[in-house]
Amino acid sequence: MVRLSQADARELAVSVFVRHGMPTSHAKDVAAHLVDAMVTGHAFAGLPRVPAIVAELVRKGPGGPIRVTRQTPVSATIDGGDVNGYVVSLVATDKAIEIANASGIAVVGACNTWFSGRLAYYVERIARAGLVAIHTANTAARVAPFGGADRILGTNPVAFAFPCGDEPVILDIGTSSVTWGDALLRQATGRPLEFGTAVDPEGRETADPALALAGAFLTWGGARGSCLAFAAQLFGILAGSDPVLREAHNSGFFFLALNPDLLMPADKFQDHVSRLREAVRRSRPAEGQVEVRMPGDRSQQARRELGDGEVEVDPTVHRRLLALSGARLDSECA
Amino acid sequence: MVRLSQADARELAVSVFVRHGMPTSHAKDVAAHLVDAMVTGHAFAGLPRVPAIVAELVRKGPGGPIRVTRQTPVSATIDGGDVNGYVVSLVATDKAIEIANASGIAVVGACNTWFSGRLAYYVERIARAGLVAIHTANTAARVAPFGGADRILGTNPVAFAFPCGDEPVILDIGTSSVTWGDALLRQATGRPLEFGTAVDPEGRETADPALALAGAFLTWGGARGSCLAFAAQLFGILAGSDPVLREAHNSGFFFLALNPDLLMPADKFQDHVSRLREAVRRSRPAEGQVEVRMPGDRSQQARRELGDGEVEVDPTVHRRLLALSGARLDSECA
Repeated sequence: MVRLSQADARELAVSVFVRHGMPTSHAKDVAAHLVDAMVTGHAFAGLPRVPAIVAELVRKGPGGPIRVTRQTPVSATIDGGDVNGYVVSLVATDKAIEIANASGIAVVGACNTWFSGRLAYYVERIARAGLVAIHTANTAARVAPFGGADRILGTNPVAFAFPCGDEPVILDIGTSSVTWGDALLRQATGRPLEFGTAVDPEGRETADPALALAGAFLTWGGARGSCLAFAAQLFGILAGSDPVLREAHNSGFFFLALNPDLLMPADKFQDHVSRLREAVRRSRPAEGQVEVRMPGDRSQQARRELGDGEVEVDPTVHRRLLALSGARLDSECA
Repeated sequence: MVRLSQADARELAVSVFVRHGMPTSHAKDVAAHLVDAMVTGHAFAGLPRVPAIVAELVRKGPGGPIRVTRQTPVSATIDGGDVNGYVVSLVATDKAIEIANASGIAVVGACNTWFSGRLAYYVERIARAGLVAIHTANTAARVAPFGGADRILGTNPVAFAFPCGDEPVILDIGTSSVTWGDALLRQATGRPLEFGTAVDPEGRETADPALALAGAFLTWGGARGSCLAFAAQLFGILAGSDPVLREAHNSGFFFLALNPDLLMPADKFQDHVSRLREAVRRSRPAEGQVEVRMPGDRSQQARRELGDGEVEVDPTVHRRLLALSGARLDSECA
């Protein structure tokens, strides 16, 4: 693995994006998100995402201005100007925080945008502002609803966050059994999917990544998990997306930020959240388990342990990014 | 099965509740909820729930007044006065509708209450008022979080609803693999649980309902499903519940009602929801499936087909309710 300082990793991503026409301020926002993903242990959501973002950027161009199209004391709608979702979601997140700080609660919908990154990134930002967060994103249709064979739902992540001192509780779950990236990776490396996670184009269960990519992924959790994917789809529609997204464009991102003080004193709430977390951490593991974790503990632990240490990048990915950045590569000079 | 008109079924429940000290207006609210559950095809959430409600009622008494303890333009907190949750949730639901009608959005927390019924009942009421709904309830700790063996979470249902003409989309899911009622029923009828749904008191997976009742249920969907159970637990805490509920008291019910008009014209939203639903209904079923349904379709179809027809009650349950109502039973007269 190639080791990079976090600053160098961000700079590499910025140079690639800017070279492909992304405004520098946007490039910095996306790079900060990607490197945070690596820092919190989600390597695949980090620099390996750059080529896919660049491909869309080249296809679509850098996008127009991001505009607040309507604002009320408790809400805002945002037209993302076809800018990537990493940037648009950050604008929406900060707008939700601003409105909730003033009114106690905010609902924000963003559309005309594509891709999004880890929802944890945005809800953590809301929780660190002392607010409870709900956030959903609907994405290109790649998932069949329970019982179905046709792509109707996106991989549709759903996230929640609850402020709790320096360690907000972050819940961030995709609603598909498989992510697009994981299916591509398994196809490239010849590893099958788990059975029951996808159907082929004829609607038969398959573990073959290529057939799954041509067919549809399934939600986890059967009919109940499918309900959660529908919730994200419907909140996406409310945020302005198409009912069914035939490609990576016009996703709908829904944000809700809520001051806990509306319902109870904020310090009491954080104390109670902390008590739940302590009860979880000191509870007995089930047979075969070593410990019981609070959701999100692993990410926060990874970030604490790394501090400002170096992140690791797959050498193939690193070479690809250097090439995309226009840097002269040693191999090219040889 | 015993067949009763819906009015007679409600009246039977009301007579039982009133005889055990519940105010008549409360008894009517609970009975309407229970019979609606039967009408929508959820027999077990109907009259069979009466004895458990009566047992708590006898233990706790009818409760004090239900009070709005704080209200802002966007929120309310409700002290349930230790009244059952069927009644308190209805008060909270109507308060959420009232506030959202005035301000566009409402968050309502209710605590000092126990039991709740089907969350679908409340969110449907919100959606029929033209509002989007989010609702969670945390309940007595019977569920271990992912990897754990100790009861920390309730069976914690989560529900959403989206207005769409005469047929709002209702999503209502429990977060436990097993419900308490189902485990009791399987214990009584000698049927095992599915493997992977519970652990015994020593934290070993078990399919024995008795051991599961003494141990802990598990969430469905592994670590991801556990996240959803945590979300309901944390919103319950925000609504005023204890961090971990050692028995059926002081549940926290969280309600959010939101006018879609804040984010897009309400009729356009309903049209888009309808287009998603049509895409689902006309999509191809997977191999081995007959059709693809929208979540909630089955309940609404059951209600449409029954109309004002009779509901069916298990004869044992019926005899028990007649006895609890103080009616002279044929068997007693024999």
